[in-house]
Amino acid sequence: MKVEIIAVGNEVVTGKTINTNAAYIAQQVQKIGLTPLYHSGVIDQKQYIQAALKEALGRVDIIILTGGLGPTEDDLTKEAVCEYLNKPLILYEDIWGQVQEYFAQTNRATPKNNKKQAYFPKDCMIIPNQNGTASGALFKYNEQYIILLPGPPKELRPMLDEVIIPYFRRVQEGIYYTLDIKTFGLGESHLVELIPDLLGVSGNVEVAPYVGDNEIIIRIRSFGKYEEEAKIIAEEVEKQLANRLEEYIIGYNDNKLEDVILQLLVKNDYTIATAESCTGGLLAGTLVNCGGISSYFKEGVVSYSNEAKEKYLGVKSETLTKYGAVSSQTAKEMAEGIQKAAGAYIGLSTTGIAGPDGGTKEKPVGLVYIGIAIGEKCNVYKLNLQGDRQGIRQKTVQNVLYHLYRQLNQ
Amino acid sequence: MKVEIIAVGNEVVTGKTINTNAAYIAQQVQKIGLTPLYHSGVIDQKQYIQAALKEALGRVDIIILTGGLGPTEDDLTKEAVCEYLNKPLILYEDIWGQVQEYFAQTNRATPKNNKKQAYFPKDCMIIPNQNGTASGALFKYNEQYIILLPGPPKELRPMLDEVIIPYFRRVQEGIYYTLDIKTFGLGESHLVELIPDLLGVSGNVEVAPYVGDNEIIIRIRSFGKYEEEAKIIAEEVEKQLANRLEEYIIGYNDNKLEDVILQLLVKNDYTIATAESCTGGLLAGTLVNCGGISSYFKEGVVSYSNEAKEKYLGVKSETLTKYGAVSSQTAKEMAEGIQKAAGAYIGLSTTGIAGPDGGTKEKPVGLVYIGIAIGEKCNVYKLNLQGDRQGIRQKTVQNVLYHLYRQLNQ
Repeated sequence: MKVEIIAVGNEVVTGKTINTNAAYIAQQVQKIGLTPLYHSGVIDQKQYIQAALKEALGRVDIIILTGGLGPTEDDLTKEAVCEYLNKPLILYEDIWGQVQEYFAQTNRATPKNNKKQAYFPKDCMIIPNQNGTASGALFKYNEQYIILLPGPPKELRPMLDEVIIPYFRRVQEGIYYTLDIKTFGLGESHLVELIPDLLGVSGNVEVAPYVGDNEIIIRIRSFGKYEEEAKIIAEEVEKQLANRLEEYIIGYNDNKLEDVILQLLVKNDYTIATAESCTGGLLAGTLVNCGGISSYFKEGVVSYSNEAKEKYLGVKSETLTKYGAVSSQTAKEMAEGIQKAAGAYIGLSTTGIAGPDGGTKEKPVGLVYIGIAIGEKCNVYKLNLQGDRQGIRQKTVQNVLYHLYRQLNQ
Repeated sequence: MKVEIIAVGNEVVTGKTINTNAAYIAQQVQKIGLTPLYHSGVIDQKQYIQAALKEALGRVDIIILTGGLGPTEDDLTKEAVCEYLNKPLILYEDIWGQVQEYFAQTNRATPKNNKKQAYFPKDCMIIPNQNGTASGALFKYNEQYIILLPGPPKELRPMLDEVIIPYFRRVQEGIYYTLDIKTFGLGESHLVELIPDLLGVSGNVEVAPYVGDNEIIIRIRSFGKYEEEAKIIAEEVEKQLANRLEEYIIGYNDNKLEDVILQLLVKNDYTIATAESCTGGLLAGTLVNCGGISSYFKEGVVSYSNEAKEKYLGVKSETLTKYGAVSSQTAKEMAEGIQKAAGAYIGLSTTGIAGPDGGTKEKPVGLVYIGIAIGEKCNVYKLNLQGDRQGIRQKTVQNVLYHLYRQLNQ
């Protein structure tokens, strides 16, 4: 079945917001064998929403509209679609109750505008929104499917993944199975050189690379009559890929590197602590984002100044003077220092030049040292990273996690 | 003049690439008063490219197609467009020379496929590409403009900014001016209730709300014969808006709250330090993301465990026992503790339950206390936040920054 994704909203059309929803939806629907065919973006005016809908009705089976479900007068998606399809909007009392409940929970009065968020066409499937007041909807119009979802990605994504995707998985005949292999440490062009014969479509399976946020994903998509059949096909290909890519693999599917690391900490009952300079808390923040880490993450120090490096971590004053704060020696003393101070089994450290200022010829922007102390052993890695301040900091964190993972997983 | 942006390419439609070009182009063309009206994304097949072109010709004045100018057989944009418009492609010898030169410079033979990059319709304006072999083109079709640009952003952006934008600046009369007011602390629906009469279009000025990452933006867009005239119109409206929204305003245009705070630290020569529990380093990470903060950010502690709260921050053991780690008393002692330990003028603290586990009836997920110690004074704020773990942590950081800003700006 073919899919068109229509983004509704001035903020998208004017470029204020980058339309990441379209890419996300396209990726997710492909996993279950639907084919994204067309993207559109229209402004918040009924005539344009209706014109886009008309075109979509002429070429695809599933139309997903995003945005324009908010409480303001500019939010017109539902109204425009239902007017065009001649489906009157009626009040869903239970949804109106939920909207009021949402505000009551935080002791706020429900603005009267929000009542429009409880109006939907008759007989539609309401899609609950766990993160906001804009419910979504799915309904059939003749043989086509119309789906309305809110614009904010954190609201849209769970609604898509938990309701829409399972729905169409049931509607479809046969089943697609997707297995993502996440890799780190090699760029896309080098990575594909290791597996040229395994890429592309072959029988009921397709293998293709995707560029993720900080990693390269090798996606296996297989088709079978039943999920089990599709899964077996995918796993056979996965074995062949894993053989060649082994040292670059950092996880599967939605697993984040920090989640995989947490599993290893739990399994081995290892505690961890962080000492950060250039990443300024981002490393601790990434680890702490894993629910359930409380018992394993002891503490973190953002030792931005030399003073703090000495005071909290016991970095020697001579080390700082002789080698500088950005040096492998300092990285080592920071990692071992926090390990000791926190009484943790693992100590991690970062020190580097994130820019935009502060670089010199000997120590340019992007030079970063990371220290990983595990038990008695401490390894320091030197990185030469590219990008802006934020990019260098994020890449530093990913590198720490990658090297920690490699060492814990040996 | 109205603009449609058509992205051509399977990588966009399948979600492999996020279409950042559309947002970039939309923002740039608005600055000179053009109106982006529609975005589309189509796969690399002539029939779809031509269908999109046909629709665009029916509704806008300027059609910008991005992507599909490469040397491979999949690159079909130019061929599809010129076939549809019945404009034969001819070889531009000088462009062919440039393509060969491009390869010669890196001692590579020119692949024969690349010759197609030197074919364009007769009498078109060629747009040089400083970063690749795909030249762009601009030509008129009756009274409409057709523009072809390559897909990679680093190739497209300079071509747009240095050739297309100046071209249409000359074509157009008058100029637009944009002023964004950033607010925090009230949701969109409550915010617009404060300014219903100022919203919408009125004369030469338009006011509309936008939902940003963590803030609500009120955008003023005005039109004048000259920039100065447009600016005066916008600033008059800004004064009226500022009067009503005063306590919620956190900045203007692209200023981030952390940048505004850094300015205030610099201005007053205040140092700052952080003690984080539930935000786990995210607060320090956000502050440290500002280039130039090194001299003002003293240090940060991620005191996830009670032990660390006592050791680094001097939180009293009785306080933790009597009131718990998530309490206003602990937040206060943490803020004052880090202030003292770091010898900083400002101490910030966070302690709360980010979930998904750890909530109780008395202390549910989303309960967060933040402490702000400035000099001799310490204020604690109790927050009841909604969202997932990551969302609660981000909202906590935004709340700390907002309350700090309000206090520093009194």
